[in-house]
Amino acid sequence: MTYCLALNLNDGLVLLADSRTNAGVDNISTFGKLFTWSMPQSPEGNGRAIALMMAGNLSITQEIVNLIEEENARGDQFSIMQAPSMFRVAERVGALMSDVQGRRGPALFNAGVAAGASIIVAGQIQGDVTRVFLVYTEGNFIEATADTPFMQIGEAKYGKPILDRTITMATPMNEGITAALLSMDATLRSNLSVGMPLDMAVSSAGSFEWRSRRIGLNDATYRDMSNRWSEHLRSGFKQMPLIEI
Amino acid sequence: MTYCLALNLNDGLVLLADSRTNAGVDNISTFGKLFTWSMPQSPEGNGRAIALMMAGNLSITQEIVNLIEEENARGDQFSIMQAPSMFRVAERVGALMSDVQGRRGPALFNAGVAAGASIIVAGQIQGDVTRVFLVYTEGNFIEATADTPFMQIGEAKYGKPILDRTITMATPMNEGITAALLSMDATLRSNLSVGMPLDMAVSSAGSFEWRSRRIGLNDATYRDMSNRWSEHLRSGFKQMPLIEI
Repeated sequence: MTYCLALNLNDGLVLLADSRTNAGVDNISTFGKLFTWSMPQSPEGNGRAIALMMAGNLSITQEIVNLIEEENARGDQFSIMQAPSMFRVAERVGALMSDVQGRRGPALFNAGVAAGASIIVAGQIQGDVTRVFLVYTEGNFIEATADTPFMQIGEAKYGKPILDRTITMATPMNEGITAALLSMDATLRSNLSVGMPLDMAVSSAGSFEWRSRRIGLNDATYRDMSNRWSEHLRSGFKQMPLIEI
Repeated sequence: MTYCLALNLNDGLVLLADSRTNAGVDNISTFGKLFTWSMPQSPEGNGRAIALMMAGNLSITQEIVNLIEEENARGDQFSIMQAPSMFRVAERVGALMSDVQGRRGPALFNAGVAAGASIIVAGQIQGDVTRVFLVYTEGNFIEATADTPFMQIGEAKYGKPILDRTITMATPMNEGITAALLSMDATLRSNLSVGMPLDMAVSSAGSFEWRSRRIGLNDATYRDMSNRWSEHLRSGFKQMPLIEI
């Protein structure tokens, strides 16, 4: 499994992905699931920061990334680096998903191998706001809106309550980064199929660039945060109104 | 679906169950899933407080409860009100599960209806400590231990991180009650198939009695707790060490 999440805040985008790939619990590996592209703001209006995060069958998602890189290198008009809007970027990723599923799906199905995959598409193109989409196995996609300004793929349940309770588009970037890491930490503690290291990428609105960081098992700040959060929860119990019984 | 959880604390037992039963999202009802029995401490040493919480196929679990009531009324030696230990109580519930599954399972299977069920068995019998078991569809069972002093059945993922981070056997009863309610609240917010009202039962160690309470949609204290918890989480983000990116 996998856990990836994207927050779409007024301040910008916060993306976080784990890096565990497994074929059974006795065969686990580390593969990056977060990919970013960017181009600075320009008079032609082509500035953009785009990121993808992948869950599901690794051969399917890696093939999609390679096809995207080929299209970018050729400068295709429909490539994600030329597309006129994030809607068209999501549409292109969905088309590549359909294409790869169509070619690979039948053989995988016959072998009893799951071909399913999902991709979070997040970014901003000059002249528009930041946007986050979720592309499904079938190539169709949905967009995060102000009501629920985040998307998750993979093992999403453990980390959802903390986001449901706290994240709005007005959440400041720093708090969004902390919330994303705590949502991931909840998942890491409960599910073996989600694992360190973590890949984080952040794009401030209007910057058209990504700041990236890999967070490893021995990251002292991360461990400090995780321990302090447990203490914060326990101390909170003492402050809650008591249900008499 | 369902969400039920039991905490086994040094102070005693905290049990919480939702009450939603559904056959599709367009057919939901309210059914109690928490059942308690008790007998005061006595010179003969037969004092006990026993509770069951049920998830899965409602016809299966209701049949088991009815069979238990029949055995109790007859005063059978192997009934849960006569059994010499909580191990034997769990064993009896497991035997009834096997029996009912054996009689009902094949017809349900042929009709494509899920017959699966699981039961949390919690309680204390005079002369022993409080114990919590989880009985599976097949009638086998496991016991909660000091490493993980809680059991969950049904839609368990949303509410697990808060328990993982905070609950030990040394957690005071009042904090356990709050933690159980917040674990349930996380689940209620994320999953339509888990619903109010909630049934809570608490048994202080050595009391051999249950204190019970039903918590409804309009419970002001519960809503206050839920809102204050969201605020506590948000305020916590500001206190966490910042991961630089």
